[in-house]
Order: sequence, then structure tokens, then C-alpha cells
Amino acid sequence: MVSRTLTKFIKSLQLKKYRKLEQLFLVEGEKSVVEVLRSTFKVQQLFVTLEFQKQYQALLSANELTVVSERELASLGSFKSNNSALAVVKMAKQVGLNVDQGFSIALDSVNDPGNLGTIIRIADWYGIDKIIASKDTADLYNPKVISASKGSFTRVRVHYVDLKTYLQKLDMPIYGAFISGESIHDVKFEESGVIVMGNESQGISDEVNGCISKRISIPKFGGAESLNVGVATAVICDNLKRSLT
Amino acid sequence: MVSRTLTKFIKSLQLKKYRKLEQLFLVEGEKSVVEVLRSTFKVQQLFVTLEFQKQYQALLSANELTVVSERELASLGSFKSNNSALAVVKMAKQVGLNVDQGFSIALDSVNDPGNLGTIIRIADWYGIDKIIASKDTADLYNPKVISASKGSFTRVRVHYVDLKTYLQKLDMPIYGAFISGESIHDVKFEESGVIVMGNESQGISDEVNGCISKRISIPKFGGAESLNVGVATAVICDNLKRSLT
Repeated sequence: MVSRTLTKFIKSLQLKKYRKLEQLFLVEGEKSVVEVLRSTFKVQQLFVTLEFQKQYQALLSANELTVVSERELASLGSFKSNNSALAVVKMAKQVGLNVDQGFSIALDSVNDPGNLGTIIRIADWYGIDKIIASKDTADLYNPKVISASKGSFTRVRVHYVDLKTYLQKLDMPIYGAFISGESIHDVKFEESGVIVMGNESQGISDEVNGCISKRISIPKFGGAESLNVGVATAVICDNLKRSLT
Repeated sequence: MVSRTLTKFIKSLQLKKYRKLEQLFLVEGEKSVVEVLRSTFKVQQLFVTLEFQKQYQALLSANELTVVSERELASLGSFKSNNSALAVVKMAKQVGLNVDQGFSIALDSVNDPGNLGTIIRIADWYGIDKIIASKDTADLYNPKVISASKGSFTRVRVHYVDLKTYLQKLDMPIYGAFISGESIHDVKFEESGVIVMGNESQGISDEVNGCISKRISIPKFGGAESLNVGVATAVICDNLKRSLT
């Protein structure tokens, strides 16, 4: 049994205010919890079903573990149902990212948590482990971001900055994704740089626009007006890797 | 004011059973309703806010129109909030698709409505207007599919078939997306064919696997185990178009 006080405390971590205060966040579901247990993140508390405990015994240490029912798990977290595990995890310290080598992705006000999670997963697939995010981009530790990232949040760092100021200081190509720009099928990417993706409906802001050294775009062959920002990030990363290898 | 009977009727169209019975479906939100009004779909009833009516007067014919409040709109449809419009639209007749020329996408049990909607939008972006779907793929007329497709459902046809039987009869290359296969950066696509995308967690089924003439895959450079099926569809379509042009 999980006490009411503890339940209330864990549920409070669904809100950014309390996550920030406690420097803790929630990781839910089998795949994500397994990934966080295998990572360098410090798990402070772990709630698991008996089945999860049996299956992942080698990953678990007794002192942090509480075995609970599926119903209790669901009532603790943000998932409608959860038949495996929920972890309360310490936030990683924000350390300055060195973006001088290779590529990183910059997000200019990507507000939807599902989109941020998807972009983290895509970055991880393409071996990009640094994301620079404007301060109004969705919160990395939002349960929806963690869930959509499918464990990739353990390998990709997201660093929140004043994006314009940050980009202005960089001495490298800053590629910006626009509806019109050089086709990514033709762009010859440099060896290192930043790819900036804009807000879901507004695109790249005027402020950040001034920092872009090259406008790039995904060639369109049909009638749709735009692509989802996560989808667009994947297509651009694929062309980047293709161009570099 | 919308009567209780009419409200109940419209709400019933959120369920597949009633959509099928009435051969009607819902289209919600400004962008999607504008696209459906501009398309060949027949709009049977239209509920709009005063603002929408003013902005799109040229598109509207009086006989089908009811002006309502934002609150009424939201209570009629599936959106949490809707400040523009909701249309009750007649389903298009399912006619056999001729896939002999160009490319089409086949979906083997893509269950998530958001994913189907995203794939329709991606197909539309890449000028692919035919999707062949297994019978257990999400329903095209589900409000979440229509919403995620961002109006592209008006240009892309989705045809539900027994996928194995359908593919077996085709005399053209059937490309299947797998975790391991020839890299899409190297594949030379034929002039026409079908690209098969599998279920979100199981991938392509054993049954459909037997119909695949070429296994293709998206090269991976980092730690993520997989990509979302919509994201993967976009990356494959981009490589297809790049290879053909």
C-alpha cells in the first residue's frame, strides 16, 4: 500500500512547479523505466508490479522498491493504465552543452510535449545527443515528453536557453527549417552546425530568424500545407546524415 | 440553438457503428472544415461561429448553415474547444483503387488514429494519393484521424482490404519497412510500387511478410530502438521521391 501522503506527493510531480521545487520527475511504463534503470539517472523511488519485479530482478535494488498493484500504479501516475512500473527520478544537473562539434538541434518554441518527446527520440535515432531549446519550449520532464521519447531522454540532453542570444554567439552554420529555402535534397551540410526547428503553427520566430545562416526546406510533391514538426525533424536529420556519410 | 435530438445524433457520429449506419462523419476545426468545403465531399450540415461565417462567407451556402456559440460547437464534437466550425459530411463511396501506376502506401494494422491521420498528411505532402489499409487499421472517419490529417483526407483515398490477398494479386514491387533491410539511402526504387508499413509495436505481420519483394530500412546512427510509424513513413517517402527525381 502506498500512503495517501506519498500518493499526493508523487501526483504533484505531474506539475512543473513541483518538479522544479523537488528536482524530481516521473518515468512511467515498462520500456521507459527499464531504460532509466540502465542509465546514469538516479532513481529515488520505484513502484513496480510483481510481474515487472520478476522479469527485471537483475536491474532492481531492494531498498528503493515498492511492489504495488496495476491499479495503484495507474493512480500514482499520469497513464490511464500501467501494468509495469513507475519511477521517481532525480533531474540531471543542467550543464552547459558544448555544441562545437557535430550537429545539434535547436527548438524555437516547440510547445507540444508529444512533439518534444518525438524529437528527442528522432535525435537519438540519428545519433544527435544535444538539443538546445528556447525557454518556452515544452518541459523535458513533463510526463508526456518522457513517455513520447520512449527512453531516449536518457541519451539526449535538452538544454534550455535564451535561443537568440545563444545562437548569436555560435561560430558555425545555423540551418533553419522553412517552407521555402534550399531543398534538403541539394544542401551540402557542413561538418558541424545547428538545425533550428520552429513553433508548430508560427514556424521560426522573427527574433531567431536573424540568426539563421541558411534556410532549408523539405521538397513538397502534393497538396498538404505543412508537415508536423517532429516528422520534419526526422526528414531533415535523415538528409543531413545522408549528406555527411 | 441546436436541439437535444440533433446534438445526440451528431455526437453518435463519434462512434464507428453509427458513422457506418448513417454514412456520415464529422469534420472539426477551421482548417479541416475549410478544406472539406473546398473539396468534392458533400457537406450535409454545417455549424459555425459568427466569426467563421464572416471570414468564409464565399464558401458557405445558406441552406446548410447553423450559427452557434463556441460552447455549443465544443459540445457537439470531439474537440475540447472549437472556435470555428463543425461539419457533418457524407462518406465518399469506396471504389476500387487502381494502384498500377506510381506509388501507394499499404498499412498493415496501423491502429492508432493519430498515426493514420499523420500518414495521410505525409502521403499528401509527397503526392501519394492512395493508401491501402488492412481491415484492422484505424478507421479513416474517426474524428482523431480526420483531425490529424489536417485536411489531407480530402486528397488521399484510403481503401480497406484484406491486405494479404490484395498484395498477392499485384504484379509490382512490394517494399516492406523493417528494422533490418537494405538501407533506403541505397535502394533504387522502381517507377511504381507499394510501400508497406507495419503495426506500431509488432511491425509487418507474418501473413503480409510473405508478400514483400524487398525489405527496406531506415539507417540508424544512435541509441533509439525504433521510430514512430508516421515518422518512418515520411523518411521513406522522402527517400523514395529523392530516388525517383
